[in-house]
Amino acid sequence: MSGFVSFVSSGPGDPDLLTVKAVDRLQKAEAVLFDDLSAGPILEHAGPDADLIGVGKRAGRASPKQHHVSQVLVDHAKAGLRVVRLKSGDSGMFGRLEEEITALKAAGIAFEIIPGVTSASAAAAAAGMPLTRRLTARRVQFITGADVTGDLPADVNMAALADPAATTVVYMGKRTFTGLAARLIEHGLPGDTPAMLAEAVSTPAEKLTRYTIASLAKHLETTSSTTPALIFYGPLAELEE
Amino acid sequence: MSGFVSFVSSGPGDPDLLTVKAVDRLQKAEAVLFDDLSAGPILEHAGPDADLIGVGKRAGRASPKQHHVSQVLVDHAKAGLRVVRLKSGDSGMFGRLEEEITALKAAGIAFEIIPGVTSASAAAAAAGMPLTRRLTARRVQFITGADVTGDLPADVNMAALADPAATTVVYMGKRTFTGLAARLIEHGLPGDTPAMLAEAVSTPAEKLTRYTIASLAKHLETTSSTTPALIFYGPLAELEE
Repeated sequence: MSGFVSFVSSGPGDPDLLTVKAVDRLQKAEAVLFDDLSAGPILEHAGPDADLIGVGKRAGRASPKQHHVSQVLVDHAKAGLRVVRLKSGDSGMFGRLEEEITALKAAGIAFEIIPGVTSASAAAAAAGMPLTRRLTARRVQFITGADVTGDLPADVNMAALADPAATTVVYMGKRTFTGLAARLIEHGLPGDTPAMLAEAVSTPAEKLTRYTIASLAKHLETTSSTTPALIFYGPLAELEE
Repeated sequence: MSGFVSFVSSGPGDPDLLTVKAVDRLQKAEAVLFDDLSAGPILEHAGPDADLIGVGKRAGRASPKQHHVSQVLVDHAKAGLRVVRLKSGDSGMFGRLEEEITALKAAGIAFEIIPGVTSASAAAAAAGMPLTRRLTARRVQFITGADVTGDLPADVNMAALADPAATTVVYMGKRTFTGLAARLIEHGLPGDTPAMLAEAVSTPAEKLTRYTIASLAKHLETTSSTTPALIFYGPLAELEE
């Protein structure tokens, strides 16, 4: 008898930002596959007999290949287990869900996806700042700052990204933002456009710092911190002090 | 002694998609201000003595003005109460949070914002479809289909919206999508670009229907349904049947 996989979005890190449904699936899981980013207190919701399996990537350590992760997932489900595949933030947002879904479909294994709170929502909430503003930011966009090679994707749409009337959130973008900011300014976005660096969102180490796109680019040029972070820029509402 | 306001994101509708923190704030609330969209089963988390106050808009009925809503919020907090201001989806996304925050700041009332699951994440999860795809959709954008006048905002960035490499989600866009689709096609987006209409997301009445942008535009031209809906278009992953 085949098992069942729940892709469970863990939210940004604070275990209180799990959904009621995510907690339920963790409690019932017989195996939980987790990445480093989403581990820790969230795993405490799993029962004492659940098998906890780390499959995540971590900077400076050899990364398991995606096809290996998919194989581990399929193997556990084929053993007839109720499997939770924990994904940080919202699983649909830069969660590389597609590869794992494809592997499950190929193996004939049923699954569900539990949506969650994406880190951008949590960072904006912590800053006391909406992601959209009625008159000045009626479009919000999320991009990744790193493609499979670790660089900014070559085909980014600069007209979309340099739009002064949108709020932009860059996921995994610390290493490539200096280059992106130079291109944004080339494409007409003023260097003094408000920006925010949101690090370790919703954890005890959370740190929100205001910049402009120019000053943030300069800061990141000389920073080697690998703390997970989001970058916001655009017509950001005034932040809480 | 002044009260305290928690802006609580209720998620897309399913009470199991509330966060643990949102449930906690509802349980402790002395007054809950809610909109029609987020009412119902979610309010059952409030205690029996909590004052439940509807302040929402509903089609075909006179809408309370935003400044009236802000005043009711300030009045309840000034009475020293623990107030929950319930917002559907994620409060930072098209939730008109800014007006209410401004009113609280002017009155010197402390507040917090609890982020939530935005409806786009829930609809994508229900469709078995990630919002981003590693190679074909590395940008996702959310826009509103209706500004304060009910029309599509005049200053939309067509280069951003007609980008075939982005997933776009239109909130509150059923009435204006026919016009938007015509402009998208004018700006080079193929009429057979995949689209999805997601109605009553995460409720028992949920309905997900596949279209192309051209066929959805035609469908909506002759439809007067006021069911809350999201419109997705772009390089959408194949949906579950």
